Amino acid sequence: MYKIKIVTVGKTKETGLSEAIQEYTSRLKTSMAFEWIFVKDDEKLKQLLDKEPSYLCLDPNGILLTSEAFSLYIVNSLKEMGSRLTLVIGGSDGIPSEIKAKARKLLSLSPLTFTHQLTRLILVEQLYRALEIDKGSAYHK
Amino acid sequence: MYKIKIVTVGKTKETGLSEAIQEYTSRLKTSMAFEWIFVKDDEKLKQLLDKEPSYLCLDPNGILLTSEAFSLYIVNSLKEMGSRLTLVIGGSDGIPSEIKAKARKLLSLSPLTFTHQLTRLILVEQLYRALEIDKGSAYHK
Repeated sequence: MYKIKIVTVGKTKETGLSEAIQEYTSRLKTSMAFEWIFVKDDEKLKQLLDKEPSYLCLDPNGILLTSEAFSLYIVNSLKEMGSRLTLVIGGSDGIPSEIKAKARKLLSLSPLTFTHQLTRLILVEQLYRALEIDKGSAYHK
Repeated sequence: MYKIKIVTVGKTKETGLSEAIQEYTSRLKTSMAFEWIFVKDDEKLKQLLDKEPSYLCLDPNGILLTSEAFSLYIVNSLKEMGSRLTLVIGGSDGIPSEIKAKARKLLSLSPLTFTHQLTRLILVEQLYRALEIDKGSAYHK
């Protein structure tokens, strides 16, 4: 079974997006061990990632992929990394460079800047989409 | 006063995103005439756009911009087009090519594929962000 974690810096503000994030979280949890980890600041992030063998960072300078390529990349990464994957969303100042330097890859969702909560929603929706693409389901037509 | 319309094909499904879309819609309406126009199908879209002197289409093959460049482009377009701007989000099969052929420009939000509702939210948030960038406010730091 796949085990995916998203580590994210900063609090969750309650907005209309929380419900949508929860919806995709629930969908992912039906087929894998999926977890959000909220850390307070960059120091806590560093401590947590020191224990991770490998992780992906969301970063404005990361590679831009189509949903199909993102799906392939995520599924291949899961296979190469013993079915475990950790993704990192930084705080408002982004991810510290020493953390990015150790990342398996930097990924970007768009050249546009999004709010923190919107980034979380887009990432969780794309992860769900990535696995549906891999299954060949009707979600991604 | 600016007058911006987003024309979108298909129904609004009620999800957690509606509240977030409404939030940005309300913010935009405090400083401009902002309107969502929902059309049933491509035929209705064509009839509506035949009356528009100019419009922008969201399209996977459109140009990808940073939020800063998107802001400049939107604000310059508003100035060139008598403070009026119409943006089009197509249905699940995208925007018909005869409609795209007459567009002022094709814009893309990301190489990733998003749900319809998420595309609407990202567009309205970026429009709000575009105007805040132009004002030099703290929203886009």
